[in-house]
Amino acid sequence: MASSAISSRDSGEDSSQISLKSVREALIRLEDSIVFSLIERARHPYNAPAYDRLYLKSSGSSLAELFVKEAEHLHAKAGRYENPEEVPFFPEDLPSPLVPSYNYPQVLHPAGASVNITKTIWNMYFNELLPLFTAEGDDGNYASTLASDLVCLQAISRRIHYGKFVAEVKFRGSPLGYSSAINNKDKDALMRMLTFERVEEMVKRRVEKKAMIFGQQVTIEDKEDDNVDCKVNPSVVSRLYGDWIIPLTKLVEVDYLLRRLE
Amino acid sequence: MASSAISSRDSGEDSSQISLKSVREALIRLEDSIVFSLIERARHPYNAPAYDRLYLKSSGSSLAELFVKEAEHLHAKAGRYENPEEVPFFPEDLPSPLVPSYNYPQVLHPAGASVNITKTIWNMYFNELLPLFTAEGDDGNYASTLASDLVCLQAISRRIHYGKFVAEVKFRGSPLGYSSAINNKDKDALMRMLTFERVEEMVKRRVEKKAMIFGQQVTIEDKEDDNVDCKVNPSVVSRLYGDWIIPLTKLVEVDYLLRRLE
Repeated sequence: MASSAISSRDSGEDSSQISLKSVREALIRLEDSIVFSLIERARHPYNAPAYDRLYLKSSGSSLAELFVKEAEHLHAKAGRYENPEEVPFFPEDLPSPLVPSYNYPQVLHPAGASVNITKTIWNMYFNELLPLFTAEGDDGNYASTLASDLVCLQAISRRIHYGKFVAEVKFRGSPLGYSSAINNKDKDALMRMLTFERVEEMVKRRVEKKAMIFGQQVTIEDKEDDNVDCKVNPSVVSRLYGDWIIPLTKLVEVDYLLRRLE
Repeated sequence: MASSAISSRDSGEDSSQISLKSVREALIRLEDSIVFSLIERARHPYNAPAYDRLYLKSSGSSLAELFVKEAEHLHAKAGRYENPEEVPFFPEDLPSPLVPSYNYPQVLHPAGASVNITKTIWNMYFNELLPLFTAEGDDGNYASTLASDLVCLQAISRRIHYGKFVAEVKFRGSPLGYSSAINNKDKDALMRMLTFERVEEMVKRRVEKKAMIFGQQVTIEDKEDDNVDCKVNPSVVSRLYGDWIIPLTKLVEVDYLLRRLE
């Protein structure tokens, strides 16, 4: 199951091709990743010291900041940010890849490719989302807690920044339709053109269902559906999409389109 | 949902307490983590260059070795290996934690605590398991591939090294029963005492079912069960448990017990 919307260099196709179908499939697959990542993070309680800037006395950073920064350094060395689908939270001073350049297809418009709203995602995740689906308490497992946070952050950020590919596909489908709103810098008109409430409702219902199915206690015996036992409250996942992921994805789409004709 | 079998320092209980029930619950919860981790790794094809020692010309290591080593350094700084449930793949030269010591309960016998079969797990994972559940091909995403490999390795290793806690609980339940086999260094007798075929069969069936449920394509509409579409073949997960995880866990149990009376 390919998780990427863009065709690989081995496919022999025109590397700038991208289809709405492949983008949709990638977004649907990413829902599973996001739900899995939240369930795994919920194994641990909130673990406040990991996020407290006063905890590591000498550094001035939280353990979370230090952990994500160093992990992104390692990922950069392995070439993660060569892929236009990946956006770092701390883009400053990332090392060069140790690996030869992989020829990712150039799908995005160069000016739009630089859209980066990771700061907004960081604040949303730590300040709003995390307390909603973790229990109070401290089990001391800060390393595995932060490793799980990183997986959540990366999956959510990938989903939201996929808005660039969504916008590119939509623009290519109707360049004239978008151009006047882009030229007029009319964000509201663009937001209206990108909003399909019926689809958004369907996505929210689907991720809620995924949280129920993936978060259930599976036993050998068939038993009654027992939603009380879900490892992450399905309504929190629905809210994550409705309040944050869907609006932020559209924000990325609008930001991308505003630069699309530069 | 606590994922640890040992009681936390906040519980006020005797910190050396451990129950068979809590160990079982931790093992069952770890099954979900293992299945999720395999499904996430299967998003990418095999990606051979990540494992090829000739790929990074100057280093003599594969990108996988380099990635796991550096990730374990970062995890060590965040205190991961202070927890007796966690065992590093590269224990040499790990840095000291930056975080104050967390007072994990001392459950294990000190001599047994050092049992480490990560080399066996490493070889099993990369040489035998990985080709069974990844598609052929190369999508260039080596960083996220290796990050997923690390999550798989850590979850599988945690499950297998949990054998120490299983063995400790069983030993405490029947110290006289185990002592003569331990004193005689009779591995076969210990292995027989630790083997419950009916339970092993149940575990294999449960993880196969988890792979079906967690690996399905969830849609809003209810539809027929469609196992062909599972993201990881459920029979591979059953085999992972039957051929490797269960036997290796028992190997850890025997190794632990052989040192239990030192």
